[in-house]
Amino acid sequence: MAQSTAETDANTYEQFLEKVRRIENLGAGAGVLQWDQEVKMPDEGIEARSQQLSTLSAVIHEEFTDEEMGAYLNELESTDLDDEQAAVVREIRRQYDRKTRVPTELVEEISRTTSKALPKWKEAKAEDDFSIFAPILEELIELKKEYAEHIDPDADPYEVLFADYEPYIELEKAEEMLARLREELVPLIDSVSDSDAELATDAFAGEFDPDTQEKLARDALDVLGYDWDRGRLDTAPHPFSTGNQFDARVTTRFDETDLLGGLTSTIHEFGHATYTLGLPDEHYGTPLGDSRDLTVHESQSRLWENHVGRSRAFWELFHPRVEERFPDVEASGEDAYEAANQVHDDNLIRVEADELTYHMHIVLRFEIERELIEGDLSVEEIPETWNEKMEEFLGIRPDTDAEGCLQDIHWSHGSFGYFPTYSLGSVLAAQLYANADEEIDDLDGKIREGEFDPLREWLVENVHRHGARYTTPELIEEATDEAFTADYFLEYVTEKYGELYDL
Amino acid sequence: MAQSTAETDANTYEQFLEKVRRIENLGAGAGVLQWDQEVKMPDEGIEARSQQLSTLSAVIHEEFTDEEMGAYLNELESTDLDDEQAAVVREIRRQYDRKTRVPTELVEEISRTTSKALPKWKEAKAEDDFSIFAPILEELIELKKEYAEHIDPDADPYEVLFADYEPYIELEKAEEMLARLREELVPLIDSVSDSDAELATDAFAGEFDPDTQEKLARDALDVLGYDWDRGRLDTAPHPFSTGNQFDARVTTRFDETDLLGGLTSTIHEFGHATYTLGLPDEHYGTPLGDSRDLTVHESQSRLWENHVGRSRAFWELFHPRVEERFPDVEASGEDAYEAANQVHDDNLIRVEADELTYHMHIVLRFEIERELIEGDLSVEEIPETWNEKMEEFLGIRPDTDAEGCLQDIHWSHGSFGYFPTYSLGSVLAAQLYANADEEIDDLDGKIREGEFDPLREWLVENVHRHGARYTTPELIEEATDEAFTADYFLEYVTEKYGELYDL
Repeated sequence: MAQSTAETDANTYEQFLEKVRRIENLGAGAGVLQWDQEVKMPDEGIEARSQQLSTLSAVIHEEFTDEEMGAYLNELESTDLDDEQAAVVREIRRQYDRKTRVPTELVEEISRTTSKALPKWKEAKAEDDFSIFAPILEELIELKKEYAEHIDPDADPYEVLFADYEPYIELEKAEEMLARLREELVPLIDSVSDSDAELATDAFAGEFDPDTQEKLARDALDVLGYDWDRGRLDTAPHPFSTGNQFDARVTTRFDETDLLGGLTSTIHEFGHATYTLGLPDEHYGTPLGDSRDLTVHESQSRLWENHVGRSRAFWELFHPRVEERFPDVEASGEDAYEAANQVHDDNLIRVEADELTYHMHIVLRFEIERELIEGDLSVEEIPETWNEKMEEFLGIRPDTDAEGCLQDIHWSHGSFGYFPTYSLGSVLAAQLYANADEEIDDLDGKIREGEFDPLREWLVENVHRHGARYTTPELIEEATDEAFTADYFLEYVTEKYGELYDL
Repeated sequence: MAQSTAETDANTYEQFLEKVRRIENLGAGAGVLQWDQEVKMPDEGIEARSQQLSTLSAVIHEEFTDEEMGAYLNELESTDLDDEQAAVVREIRRQYDRKTRVPTELVEEISRTTSKALPKWKEAKAEDDFSIFAPILEELIELKKEYAEHIDPDADPYEVLFADYEPYIELEKAEEMLARLREELVPLIDSVSDSDAELATDAFAGEFDPDTQEKLARDALDVLGYDWDRGRLDTAPHPFSTGNQFDARVTTRFDETDLLGGLTSTIHEFGHATYTLGLPDEHYGTPLGDSRDLTVHESQSRLWENHVGRSRAFWELFHPRVEERFPDVEASGEDAYEAANQVHDDNLIRVEADELTYHMHIVLRFEIERELIEGDLSVEEIPETWNEKMEEFLGIRPDTDAEGCLQDIHWSHGSFGYFPTYSLGSVLAAQLYANADEEIDDLDGKIREGEFDPLREWLVENVHRHGARYTTPELIEEATDEAFTADYFLEYVTEKYGELYDL
């Protein structure tokens, strides 16, 4: 292997990093355009906006996959690099390989097909008619299989697709974890359903003015310590969080009849934004200043949403704020805690599910999409398979496909392999929270007092500040001194729901 | 000259246009980032945003000035093109030449220096100390002279700089026009000052809640026919309008003690946005779908701000809306008209000036910056020269430089040659409005009835729909059947202010 002088190496690495930063900046620019499109853009703006985004995406692709990038990677891989440099090269190499292996025509065809699939899915859902969506879903499945084949012809195609969302956790590991969730949660949910415990489920029943809900959401972000100099709150039909360590924005939505939904959605997105804000400023524009993949990102949102935002301590702290904004509400901290943790065993909709049944929705999707990609299930069989699994896992059966297999947008985006990261994120949240709880003196008491800095600092120190320096398993090991495990999650839900439902 | 087959030509032109669209899309993306920065971005976001914008600007520069672009231009210029194609090639060639003639290092140095100049200017203005700003202003003048020298070593450097903002109107013509304004407006302003007429200047005195002012600004945009599906209204410290034919946004600002200021600023920016919205949809991304330069753009904002928004007909229509929002205001249409047209001969600030004295502020800046660039005036002499000219033109003298030569941001941007386009825009607005008034039956009556479509349609037909197909003089000739002239403007102000002030 050719070994250049130390000085040349340093120059090459700096030039490479300059190129990486350039690409990241273009990507960040596209992110602002997407935020604007969802949150601020007037309707008719879409015509020009889609051209702007498609140009940006073409420029990014060209810059990422050009000969110069290949040459930098080859040269740097045969050079002595320090740990940080090696991590940057590892991350860029992985993306470079995935991008260069797929022919541009196929990328464009997938992009065209998903553009057509989205309105078809919307129509199918609105009309409750799966046959409207089925043909284009079939096309998408074939295209994504072809895509996977280009990236790695020897691998299980679902494994390749899954790695687009979670590259460092092996599919086998994810599968084991989901199987364990299914095995242990189904009986737990059954016991909850059989329980006679009466929770204060009506604590937040009523109608709530959205403008006042927004004020309450801002109260929650104030209490949790959101940095308004580096963020903002807006509403969007599908809440998301986006940005970088200098500007990480939260979106949420408010439903007049669902006060808790707006709050938990806000806290969830706050968790994502808090991760982004914890990334090191000095590494902006490189993988060292960028977040890890979906499992870790989702662990941060779920940690704040569930372990904080659905905790007794939080509701003891926060219920007076609800009463200040909505004087008609008379819910004690305990009432609020119970309402926020009610298990809805008759709920058909994933995004409205509680901490327990949620994972059954994910296991169902995971099992279906694996079989779809492997060719063991045909598109026409989806509705029936879906309904059977709902019956098997939760004892309920959707009356319509709109409330069944048409409820989620993901497949219309061609996103097969995305769903599992939601459950993996929850599982990791529990593992991280258990460690933080161990290491922070009286964390529960601190939350009750509104002191969130220790928890946030623990997460910055153990997760955020590393950016993408470590792979996901390395990062988990680094933060918790053990491998990724569902033990903590199962312990957490067993204890919490055992107490709530007198099991 | 080599002549290719018609088919090859068409292909070359299509490829060239594809490249042009790509560059325009990147520029439009940067425009969204700038809008966001001014209007929505949290403060700390600037760190990442400036990197994103600087990357985008570098990519745009590279794409615009690469060999491929030069080759396309050379080939197309030796080809038979239709009028539209020839116009696109003309516009891109002009920009290509200007961009390729200036060395990248100089562009970067100017950009670095303006970044440093902005905070210096702010500090100097805040501390009322010109010496804080003087050294970097001197640097900027030298750099811009060097810049002009690269573009055209044989031309008057101020002429070259002026052409950055108004490429198709000759400096000599602009100079003649400004001299004529000075000659005819100074005695008119004197007569107004000497007049005993008492205008209803207090019609809108008081304090006005900004949120209600915003509602009133939205009322005004509703009345004028702003297309909310292709636009939005926000506030910004320095109001501007930005976007494209699918999404043209307005910003404004509200001052508690200045109800009229917020309204006229809104209507001014509405004029800019209306021009943008009138550009042809099908040519988005090319010069045929892009606006002409600053004179024409400013003519559109001033036409709506002054000829509509300060007309008696408009105030007869709109004054009840003011009273609906602010029931304490008791101003008849006539009162409102008088208040909106009061000549403030003691006003020192350009952006607060009326239709008459405004141009004296511009003539003053024009004369100073010409001499600065020609080396006939030193930076240290600016404050004294400024104050002398204020005395000469308006009979008033600023007590401080903050209210004098430090009031405008433009020079800190290195924008020398920009100011004249404000006056040229007003002059052109009058010429266009006189023609519209001639061709639209009872335009005044229509405005009084809230029928703004005929005026907008006239502007679309005669100005907007052409994009940058014609040069500015051609466009004026096309729209008004005569050359650019100050006759209409002078006639308009002489009649209007003669009547208002009993001259």
